[in-house]
Amino acid sequence: MSGAVDAPPLVLGVLVSGSGSNLQAVLDAVSRGELRAKVAVVISNVASAKGLDRARAARVPAVALDHKAYGSREAFDEAVVEALRAHGVTCVVLAGFMRIVTPVLLDAFPDRVVNIHPSLLPAFPGVDAQGQALRYGVRVAGCTVHFVDAGTDTGPIIAQAVVPVNEEDDVEALRARILAREHELLPAVLGWIAEDRVHVERDVAANARPRVRISPGRRPAS
Amino acid sequence: MSGAVDAPPLVLGVLVSGSGSNLQAVLDAVSRGELRAKVAVVISNVASAKGLDRARAARVPAVALDHKAYGSREAFDEAVVEALRAHGVTCVVLAGFMRIVTPVLLDAFPDRVVNIHPSLLPAFPGVDAQGQALRYGVRVAGCTVHFVDAGTDTGPIIAQAVVPVNEEDDVEALRARILAREHELLPAVLGWIAEDRVHVERDVAANARPRVRISPGRRPAS
Repeated sequence: MSGAVDAPPLVLGVLVSGSGSNLQAVLDAVSRGELRAKVAVVISNVASAKGLDRARAARVPAVALDHKAYGSREAFDEAVVEALRAHGVTCVVLAGFMRIVTPVLLDAFPDRVVNIHPSLLPAFPGVDAQGQALRYGVRVAGCTVHFVDAGTDTGPIIAQAVVPVNEEDDVEALRARILAREHELLPAVLGWIAEDRVHVERDVAANARPRVRISPGRRPAS
Repeated sequence: MSGAVDAPPLVLGVLVSGSGSNLQAVLDAVSRGELRAKVAVVISNVASAKGLDRARAARVPAVALDHKAYGSREAFDEAVVEALRAHGVTCVVLAGFMRIVTPVLLDAFPDRVVNIHPSLLPAFPGVDAQGQALRYGVRVAGCTVHFVDAGTDTGPIIAQAVVPVNEEDDVEALRARILAREHELLPAVLGWIAEDRVHVERDVAANARPRVRISPGRRPAS
């Protein structure tokens, strides 16, 4: 595999609250050899989350941390950071993680906390993005992979994918159509990060939003 | 042409403030026989607008109405409505018309005032949509054709088209890429309206946003 000699695999920690189908997409991409990364730990704030079962099935450490057992969001995030560090994680993926994260997590992994959101941000942040899109009446929808910042779904955008909205769509139909693209986009973006091609540029003097630059891919060694 | 026997052509009034390249796209679609419509009048609030020259070149009545000569937005819109009615207009197209329209115009042509905006609404309404998109750092952009309501770029969406945003884009590059899609999308939507396939559905009881329904196209008569 190209690049295998000059970079260790990306060490991922994946945070889930529910089904974890995006986690599964990442695990599958790794096992197929399409993503040069290792999922070192999966953490959920919900002990019954199916995502933890998916982790165990892939022989990945599965950690349940009940957020209700902590006195504050920061205290919970400290426990999350401790678990991530204990497994050598260098990049954190929020894959259907339904908790607001604090600077405790963000500062521990600067520009290395990635979220996937089922809308074309900045449209329709927050919960029920697909329902928001249908109620607004847009004709195109999609998903966004972005670095997480202190806001809700406001961080620098890495990649987006588009799907049509059809006349007869209900929320479930639109959700499924977007989810299929999420399962492609998230492993692809993690692959770019694994190749160290994704960087956040900041122009503090210009008071500009941070921008993501993606450098061109290297050709496979021949 | 199919449908020619059962519906008169759509009678369009196009409002422009500047170059009017979308007006030109409509004129060209009409002259090529791709859009069963007639541009009956072009109105500009800017006497020097190139859009008026385009109208004259196509032998379409070109009317300049200086908004500064009217005491209010409503008085200006009354003059616009008068000119539109004098030319038998049934559907109004805002094609780079840089004035806020009032209920005087909207109530005169209910659900028949169409705007084209260079973003994937509801993202980036208002001026400099392309610059807004670049500064935000989105990876996809596009254009939206919608019915105009009392808000700024908030009305019910009829159609949207998508373009990629490239790493090296400046505003001009993105503007040109979107504009090429505008020139396709606007005549296409007007064609649907000419075929009476575009309707706004209102569910006042549910307090829902008005939604646009587009009925399927008829097969050409064989």
